[in-house]
Amino acid sequence: MPHTKNRKAVILLSGGLDSATALYFAKKQGYKCFCLIFDYQQRHAREIRHARLIARRAGCAYKVIKISLPWKSSALLDNRIRVPREGLYVEDKIPATYVPARNIIFLSFALSYAEAIKAGAIFIGAHTQDYSGYPDCRPAFFRAFGDVIACGTKAGAQKRKIAVKTPLINKTKAGIIKLGVKLGVPFELTWSCYQGGSEPCGTCDSCRYRAKGFKEAGL
Amino acid sequence: MPHTKNRKAVILLSGGLDSATALYFAKKQGYKCFCLIFDYQQRHAREIRHARLIARRAGCAYKVIKISLPWKSSALLDNRIRVPREGLYVEDKIPATYVPARNIIFLSFALSYAEAIKAGAIFIGAHTQDYSGYPDCRPAFFRAFGDVIACGTKAGAQKRKIAVKTPLINKTKAGIIKLGVKLGVPFELTWSCYQGGSEPCGTCDSCRYRAKGFKEAGL
Repeated sequence: MPHTKNRKAVILLSGGLDSATALYFAKKQGYKCFCLIFDYQQRHAREIRHARLIARRAGCAYKVIKISLPWKSSALLDNRIRVPREGLYVEDKIPATYVPARNIIFLSFALSYAEAIKAGAIFIGAHTQDYSGYPDCRPAFFRAFGDVIACGTKAGAQKRKIAVKTPLINKTKAGIIKLGVKLGVPFELTWSCYQGGSEPCGTCDSCRYRAKGFKEAGL
Repeated sequence: MPHTKNRKAVILLSGGLDSATALYFAKKQGYKCFCLIFDYQQRHAREIRHARLIARRAGCAYKVIKISLPWKSSALLDNRIRVPREGLYVEDKIPATYVPARNIIFLSFALSYAEAIKAGAIFIGAHTQDYSGYPDCRPAFFRAFGDVIACGTKAGAQKRKIAVKTPLINKTKAGIIKLGVKLGVPFELTWSCYQGGSEPCGTCDSCRYRAKGFKEAGL
């Protein structure tokens, strides 16, 4: 059960299986969920279609926010940079798919939305167990962002809490999939592949983690 | 003189006199400046034109980022909400012109840009002396955002510092204007009025602070 009486939550929804599981987790906790989907000119813009389908299946309102990061600097934004497929996560190495400040931007919009609709929580499907190469998926980052909310918003000034919730943060991909199965997540609607193709490539980090996760979950 | 050897800076430029002064301050410190201008469907979209003119006059590169905050919740975004003109700042009262999480969103984009071009600083013309009704203009907020940069970015993970610089934070409007005069800020190109008219209204908070500032600066 949620610790807050404010039952509205903003959910960052990407179309992948993590954020879909975070959405179903929030619903299960009794939140009325408002999904936020980003069209940031990502290579795998196909995920936006999947995110819409997932939000509709969950019976939730959603908004698609279109942004542009014209400085690119990521394999997800620049077709000239190759999407890595050389192996699993290597300690302290940040993958070429890192998008500068992406989750900070996403959380800022989610925060603006949460303030506007007086939501008490923002859910993000980040996790660090399998794949902690992204600095903006680490617990310390989410704690620091919580301080920003407390210091830098009208909600914070008025002591209305907006919590950043990361229910998957310590789970493995297999663990997330097992939880998702219990929650009834429509995995068939999710999209993980970083490439822009009509079928998953099967070789990018995201495809491989997905496959490994389903295998380890015994599915 | 800047304490960093990295001489690139991203400047948040609104078209108003504060951010123009921050730009000229950064230039004076020896930074190569990259301006970031936001088209966020603000009532006073006219300021965007002024921001472009100021960046050009300063001889700096600039990008205009278009974003939409469809939840509005601010007099600057929603024409049905009246822009206040009833008096100067009242303690602890946040004005109707507060845009939920606006500076957090702006700083997030600036941070993304700064990471991409390997800039060492972000300048923002925020100040609290005259008009501290906006929680996202307070020193505690900028410190918290600094922690987010340290924890949540590739730059932070690699110990490359990106500092948020607020050179005007403790200045009054008159003090900013006096500094701007010294730095050669083209005040005739700046636009402050919150209303969307072709001439400044003279009655909104922003117009009144501007007029008061010039008067107190003896100009």
